[in-house]
Amino acid sequence: MEAYVLFSGGKDSSLSAIILKKLGYDVKLLTVNFGILDSYKYAQETAEILGLPHEVITLEREILEKSVDIILKDGYPSNGIQFIHKKVLEILADKYKILADGTRRDDKVPKLSYSEVQSLEMRKNIEYLTPLMGLGHRTIRKLVNEYFIISEKESEELPKSDYETEIRALMRLKGYDPLKYFPRHKQSRVIGLKKEI
Amino acid sequence: MEAYVLFSGGKDSSLSAIILKKLGYDVKLLTVNFGILDSYKYAQETAEILGLPHEVITLEREILEKSVDIILKDGYPSNGIQFIHKKVLEILADKYKILADGTRRDDKVPKLSYSEVQSLEMRKNIEYLTPLMGLGHRTIRKLVNEYFIISEKESEELPKSDYETEIRALMRLKGYDPLKYFPRHKQSRVIGLKKEI
Repeated sequence: MEAYVLFSGGKDSSLSAIILKKLGYDVKLLTVNFGILDSYKYAQETAEILGLPHEVITLEREILEKSVDIILKDGYPSNGIQFIHKKVLEILADKYKILADGTRRDDKVPKLSYSEVQSLEMRKNIEYLTPLMGLGHRTIRKLVNEYFIISEKESEELPKSDYETEIRALMRLKGYDPLKYFPRHKQSRVIGLKKEI
Repeated sequence: MEAYVLFSGGKDSSLSAIILKKLGYDVKLLTVNFGILDSYKYAQETAEILGLPHEVITLEREILEKSVDIILKDGYPSNGIQFIHKKVLEILADKYKILADGTRRDDKVPKLSYSEVQSLEMRKNIEYLTPLMGLGHRTIRKLVNEYFIISEKESEELPKSDYETEIRALMRLKGYDPLKYFPRHKQSRVIGLKKEI
């Protein structure tokens, strides 16, 4: 069974992919890009480290524009990021029958509610898997530490292949300072494996 | 890392155990018993099939009595089963640092809410893992079918090592008919492996 994992090169989507691989899925990694930056290249590097096939999905820039509009209007990023994630899942669900991502139990956004998950699966006739949903942050930290060598830095200093990297880039293009909208927080990228997966 | 999985011999707790084993945990299976029946023996058989160490934890019959009181008062089993599961987790969390069970995304009871999970982990300084929480019923059915040979029958005909089997026995001992309180539903037990775990 092929499972398509939304993949940023970060520790959560990497760990999700590993769990599904260990369960016997034929895992393919998908990185979404909106044509602002070639930031998908970081996910490509991590995919190679994990030894898993990787594909870049280019979606309409309009989705990213709308997300940035929401963030500029709100003054904070959560609704804009939630919007983009739901939109991406809706689009990919038309093509891929088993979709997964790195949503964790303790995440706030992006995260689908239980009824949104049910609705997505039923309307699109797909399976949506979130293998980290039953694990707390402490458990995930220990597993990540066991499997991965990670690079951890402030968001502005560590470009990733996630929504945020292109959102920030588009904000700068439009003359806005992302630092005024995003709280300072650490990002991490998987740059090596500590044990065989 | 040792992970202790609450284990009934059913497909959900078996699949949870397998996921944790594949992730690298040193998995130990725990079956709770309240001294009414020797129903733990079914879990012992399945544990042997899975090749995982198994322990029976005998807890006070009073907990089961209280659960039956709740069910008799309510006229339906969900609150009584929820009561017993939360009580069991509270007690085991004093002894085991990493506790897991087979709670699924689409389960209603027994299931801890997000704040109950947070509270359990923080108060007891443990990790509580529910590896099936990010998987829907269709995904679980496919995985179960891939890994296990199962026996599926009506509850009354398939004794298991779960709370329900002893609850039903205690109700009968007290002169009540479990069929008037439990909806008719299928139970399943893992009786063989289809592939190596």
